[in-house]
Amino acid sequence: MIRYLTAGESHGKGLSVIVDGFPSNLEIKKNDIDLYLAERQKGFGRGGRQKIENDKAEIISGIRFGKTTGAPISIFIKNYDYDNWKELLSTEDGFAEELNIPRPGHADLAGGIKYGHHDFRNVLERASARETAARVVVGALCKKFLLQFGIDMFGYVVDIGGIDTDVDEELSIKEIKKKIEIVDNKTGVYLKFPDIKKANLIINKIEKAKKEGDTIGGIVKVITSKLPIGLGDYTQWDKKLDANIAKAIMSIQAFKGIEFGAGFSYSKYFGSEIHDEIFYSKQNGFFRKTNNAGGIEGGMTNGEPIIVKAVVKPISTVLKGLNSVNVRNKKKTKTKYERSDICAVPTASLIAEMAVAIEITNAFLNKFGSDDIEFIKENYKNYLKYLKRY
Amino acid sequence: MIRYLTAGESHGKGLSVIVDGFPSNLEIKKNDIDLYLAERQKGFGRGGRQKIENDKAEIISGIRFGKTTGAPISIFIKNYDYDNWKELLSTEDGFAEELNIPRPGHADLAGGIKYGHHDFRNVLERASARETAARVVVGALCKKFLLQFGIDMFGYVVDIGGIDTDVDEELSIKEIKKKIEIVDNKTGVYLKFPDIKKANLIINKIEKAKKEGDTIGGIVKVITSKLPIGLGDYTQWDKKLDANIAKAIMSIQAFKGIEFGAGFSYSKYFGSEIHDEIFYSKQNGFFRKTNNAGGIEGGMTNGEPIIVKAVVKPISTVLKGLNSVNVRNKKKTKTKYERSDICAVPTASLIAEMAVAIEITNAFLNKFGSDDIEFIKENYKNYLKYLKRY
Amino acid sequence: MIRYLTAGESHGKGLSVIVDGFPSNLEIKKNDIDLYLAERQKGFGRGGRQKIENDKAEIISGIRFGKTTGAPISIFIKNYDYDNWKELLSTEDGFAEELNIPRPGHADLAGGIKYGHHDFRNVLERASARETAARVVVGALCKKFLLQFGIDMFGYVVDIGGIDTDVDEELSIKEIKKKIEIVDNKTGVYLKFPDIKKANLIINKIEKAKKEGDTIGGIVKVITSKLPIGLGDYTQWDKKLDANIAKAIMSIQAFKGIEFGAGFSYSKYFGSEIHDEIFYSKQNGFFRKTNNAGGIEGGMTNGEPIIVKAVVKPISTVLKGLNSVNVRNKKKTKTKYERSDICAVPTASLIAEMAVAIEITNAFLNKFGSDDIEFIKENYKNYLKYLKRY
Amino acid sequence: MIRYLTAGESHGKGLSVIVDGFPSNLEIKKNDIDLYLAERQKGFGRGGRQKIENDKAEIISGIRFGKTTGAPISIFIKNYDYDNWKELLSTEDGFAEELNIPRPGHADLAGGIKYGHHDFRNVLERASARETAARVVVGALCKKFLLQFGIDMFGYVVDIGGIDTDVDEELSIKEIKKKIEIVDNKTGVYLKFPDIKKANLIINKIEKAKKEGDTIGGIVKVITSKLPIGLGDYTQWDKKLDANIAKAIMSIQAFKGIEFGAGFSYSKYFGSEIHDEIFYSKQNGFFRKTNNAGGIEGGMTNGEPIIVKAVVKPISTVLKGLNSVNVRNKKKTKTKYERSDICAVPTASLIAEMAVAIEITNAFLNKFGSDDIEFIKENYKNYLKYLKRY
Repeated sequence: MIRYLTAGESHGKGLSVIVDGFPSNLEIKKNDIDLYLAERQKGFGRGGRQKIENDKAEIISGIRFGKTTGAPISIFIKNYDYDNWKELLSTEDGFAEELNIPRPGHADLAGGIKYGHHDFRNVLERASARETAARVVVGALCKKFLLQFGIDMFGYVVDIGGIDTDVDEELSIKEIKKKIEIVDNKTGVYLKFPDIKKANLIINKIEKAKKEGDTIGGIVKVITSKLPIGLGDYTQWDKKLDANIAKAIMSIQAFKGIEFGAGFSYSKYFGSEIHDEIFYSKQNGFFRKTNNAGGIEGGMTNGEPIIVKAVVKPISTVLKGLNSVNVRNKKKTKTKYERSDICAVPTASLIAEMAVAIEITNAFLNKFGSDDIEFIKENYKNYLKYLKRY
Repeated sequence: MIRYLTAGESHGKGLSVIVDGFPSNLEIKKNDIDLYLAERQKGFGRGGRQKIENDKAEIISGIRFGKTTGAPISIFIKNYDYDNWKELLSTEDGFAEELNIPRPGHADLAGGIKYGHHDFRNVLERASARETAARVVVGALCKKFLLQFGIDMFGYVVDIGGIDTDVDEELSIKEIKKKIEIVDNKTGVYLKFPDIKKANLIINKIEKAKKEGDTIGGIVKVITSKLPIGLGDYTQWDKKLDANIAKAIMSIQAFKGIEFGAGFSYSKYFGSEIHDEIFYSKQNGFFRKTNNAGGIEGGMTNGEPIIVKAVVKPISTVLKGLNSVNVRNKKKTKTKYERSDICAVPTASLIAEMAVAIEITNAFLNKFGSDDIEFIKENYKNYLKYLKRY
Repeated sequence: MIRYLTAGESHGKGLSVIVDGFPSNLEIKKNDIDLYLAERQKGFGRGGRQKIENDKAEIISGIRFGKTTGAPISIFIKNYDYDNWKELLSTEDGFAEELNIPRPGHADLAGGIKYGHHDFRNVLERASARETAARVVVGALCKKFLLQFGIDMFGYVVDIGGIDTDVDEELSIKEIKKKIEIVDNKTGVYLKFPDIKKANLIINKIEKAKKEGDTIGGIVKVITSKLPIGLGDYTQWDKKLDANIAKAIMSIQAFKGIEFGAGFSYSKYFGSEIHDEIFYSKQNGFFRKTNNAGGIEGGMTNGEPIIVKAVVKPISTVLKGLNSVNVRNKKKTKTKYERSDICAVPTASLIAEMAVAIEITNAFLNKFGSDDIEFIKENYKNYLKYLKRY
Repeated sequence: MIRYLTAGESHGKGLSVIVDGFPSNLEIKKNDIDLYLAERQKGFGRGGRQKIENDKAEIISGIRFGKTTGAPISIFIKNYDYDNWKELLSTEDGFAEELNIPRPGHADLAGGIKYGHHDFRNVLERASARETAARVVVGALCKKFLLQFGIDMFGYVVDIGGIDTDVDEELSIKEIKKKIEIVDNKTGVYLKFPDIKKANLIINKIEKAKKEGDTIGGIVKVITSKLPIGLGDYTQWDKKLDANIAKAIMSIQAFKGIEFGAGFSYSKYFGSEIHDEIFYSKQNGFFRKTNNAGGIEGGMTNGEPIIVKAVVKPISTVLKGLNSVNVRNKKKTKTKYERSDICAVPTASLIAEMAVAIEITNAFLNKFGSDDIEFIKENYKNYLKYLKRY
């Protein structure tokens, strides 16, 4: 099992992450991580900060000569913007004007009350979605690990501002990526959205939000390649893979809902219409012709790709201002603007992908053992043989 | 923090649950639990088993003279139907014809492969939703605990078979219960559904499913009373209250999606339209006029009621049979019927309510300390005073 | 990884235990557990209760037709003495005279203050070492599991009342058991002590304690067979096998110290005298000629047997009475006698053995994967092959 | 509850630590930590490295304007020696001659086999006791926290090389510190040893070890101030405070045994001689005149100081060389020298002190709640009032 803790403020020195329990002898190049950190900063509708920063992973420990050693992996992502914030976020004695106006939708008010702060900078710096850069690091490691076993996953956008895609629900990762590339090429804009017919509607919507000092959210989808049957568990409530994926995704800033496969539409069908019937062929073993379950039955992978959708609320920092209260004098006031994005749904889709990668990795390690990736590969090979003869 | 493990097969001797870390000196009568166990068995569309069984909590330990002692609470729910299953589920040597046909939608196939079983009885007995009776026990304890602090929650049905309610989204627990009572009285049927205009449509739909040997699912909603600000946490990914509630609910059998407050509809609005503005009055402290966030911002309670919706798939055991494969001879075949319900959405709403109760209890204990409920009450009182002067 | 929670009071209905995460397809007969439960009740110097009770495991769930299914295992040990305590330990309304005099050495006073009790029965019933019967259940399962891999362990007595054995420190399990048998046969008394020359001294000491209304403790030792190299971990503080064994043993009632291998005597030697030099032969692979480390280096098994000693304090319930205070009136008084043993060191050695079995099982599962014991066996076989070619 | 993960190699870039769950609004100056980091490097018998390095805590996050914010605290300790090791420990591609000779007493062999390394540098860099610098960071935070409640602890040396102190067993922290100061002044050497009569014997022994290319260990003792009654728990096996302290101390590199209070000598006494009788006075509440239990009964603090002793084996890196095997060619050979200390027992006493501080902090937070230290103070005050009236 891997465990990870993240730390770091949005405008502090940087983000720290320690990943414990990661197998040894996996090749990890700095670029395996930087690739995803760069992708995290992309997206039409991101704010000015993404131009200042250029996130890079500094590997501190756990990797030697380009391979994991089995020791905990410590990685640091420097905040290049910190130079402008040094005094405001000094760990030593210092002083700053308080931020006393909590922003609706943010952790500000509840966090300030919880931890005894009237200056909401003490809250927002940690509650900020910048923390997701640290999760990208963990996810990038897990993705590299899972790829050794032919397991892949991909997160993308299926709705921004209520404009959703008509594209077929069950395309493969490769097919979706191709469609997204087409949109990128045609629009010159990074949307991570696979539907060329609707792309301009979305661009217009984001531009409208920008012009009006507003923000918008959307819906992301993560799909995986076919997975080995039996990851996750049905025997105890807290070991179900879908429950763990739900937790991991819902723990990402701004997510407000999640569904697997047919999700909320399950309520509209009779059982006989919606459950995925079981087939068998010598070549493929057990398989399904539909995947309404989103790849998970009884808290376990059923062999089909996992399909998850999740909704991201509009960014809570709204330029036009919202009604709030100054917590010092209790007077009604408008929120002040803290630099932010207009729309971060493409990035959210990446973080959700990372969350899925992490949870599958843990289910995988739990089933196939730990320590040296070479052992895990042998154990996995044994399992595939067993699947053949089952 | 409370921890709990459940054990037990659907037709075995019974269900065991151990709850560790529950505070001392809380009054618990057997009936505090039996009440909810009885409610769990109700609902239009439940199968024959609910008539055979009459679940009762047998308190084994952790309670003396009607009060918790601080020791772990062990509770047993006897399966009255076990007498008919003794031989089939013997823990000692024995034999039974194998169930070799996995049912779509169930844990059967993945569970059998995972644990090396070709007889799916070894899987389905544990994967069965009967396990939720054990969670009702934990939830009943937590509800009793939270009521000492004026905290309540209620789960009910907002959609069965695609027929959803027009009833106002933000009614209080009391108002909803009144509406449900009206439906009960008028229809003579237990639906836990608050919309008298649509109740008959639902009844018809369930009856149709029954007649056709089919099943249906639906959507449940859990609402709470107003909660103290600051339960849950934003500082580390795995401590967010919404993430923990999502995990707890998604871990319940048959749940496929969850959303908080405006949920998936968040994607349709601009930030300025949907975030809950902040107000203050001397009497109420900080409050909101809307609750699109469903009571949670930054992974913490924001003072408003928690509002959660979650979708339940149709029961996977379908009388009319579905295509599957005999895993011994790999031949195509239809599933055989294992006794089951037509619709269990009202029950699902209760289990979701219990999941919410458990997770709020843990956030509460984490914030206000543990051991004797009398200390916790004093600590809580201090916090309310602090809220006044914040 | 297995997790387990125990529950139950000393004179309540019985002890409950749930073991989660135990592999499937391991044969478990009721007698595999009852054997150890019976042994737990033996020992010269045990009190009257052991004659009333005859502990038996009632398997509630997780086992079918004599094999584990992968589902959580729930086991209940009925307290046969409960009939005499029904009123005093009623879970329903009831009344009993309070026990207001805390006994030195027991949890009474601290537990009463912690949980808000003035009647120490609310504490002592749970704090009692009767709880160890539940751990015997978990340990018996783990022992059966480990035996599939040729791994065994044995706990016995090396000191009672300060009378310690002269027997060679590094005998095998088989050799020690033979020596204990000789003592049993010669003395007609169950001491679990391997030194025939000193056995009578111990018997006399226990009899002296009995006559004087006093109690005595001692020192136990647990040894294992040779273990595969690499169980446990050095990479994070909380994964070291010796640390986990130390926790498990120190958590047993009455244990006050623990040491591995040369233990406290390590301070008397130079490094060059005490570290176990490393040798290699084609037949045995890497091996040691000494085992001062007690089989663990860097928090991992080094291939040699684990050797642990731990000290058990004299039973705290002393017939002759000790000075204490009535917590209601704060007056000085003598403790009153609660039925107890004179000496339980042989039993303590069994419980320590069980603690070692449980912790090795978890290190084993972590390394070799989980679910079906047949997979684990294959994974283990691969590892043994790797050890050959390393 | 606080959680912490450490990472970092002995000669890598540095040590990382993330502490999650630490209360807000506690003043922490860099020097609060550096003080203990400096002390960790002191001690007669330490090697050359301690002169190269001058460990300092770099606070990365979780602290603003000298106060904790409630966010996770990330701290980095730079390895100043890294410049000399850059190539040997590169995280990027690189090459180094393998270390193929495992050192007895170290993690080398088991760790190499476990994680698939033949170059033991991949193991020893993480297994090294340099990791304890990260624990000093966590402990320093916890000590500062506990001091707000008047709780203190101190670790020192009671035996080096078999030479133990005659000094009274139950002196207070203040008294012991005074005795140590006398030794420091008289000998001009930092031994952390309180017995002036024996100090020179120890110095001679260390010098002898040095001359002969050998190493020595010893025994350390940690004592605390009087603690509030009821920290820790008796209700479940894994919540006992002594068990948790045992785990924390045994997880420190080189520790091989631990005992509380009378420890292993408990076996020599009758119960009536050794259990700490209970007294009461209006001024002091409940108290003891003896402290054989080492402050813990039933896994809980009983109001007296915690007293723990633990044994540290001689450093495993022995200059004169020990027999071992080259794992590549399997030939017998002598170990080669890796720079190290002769004796690190004074330092070990500090790390044990830190382990005790961390575990008490967790028991404290569990009992008195979390988040803002101001709330915790109020909750604690309530408890002290309760103790008065109990």
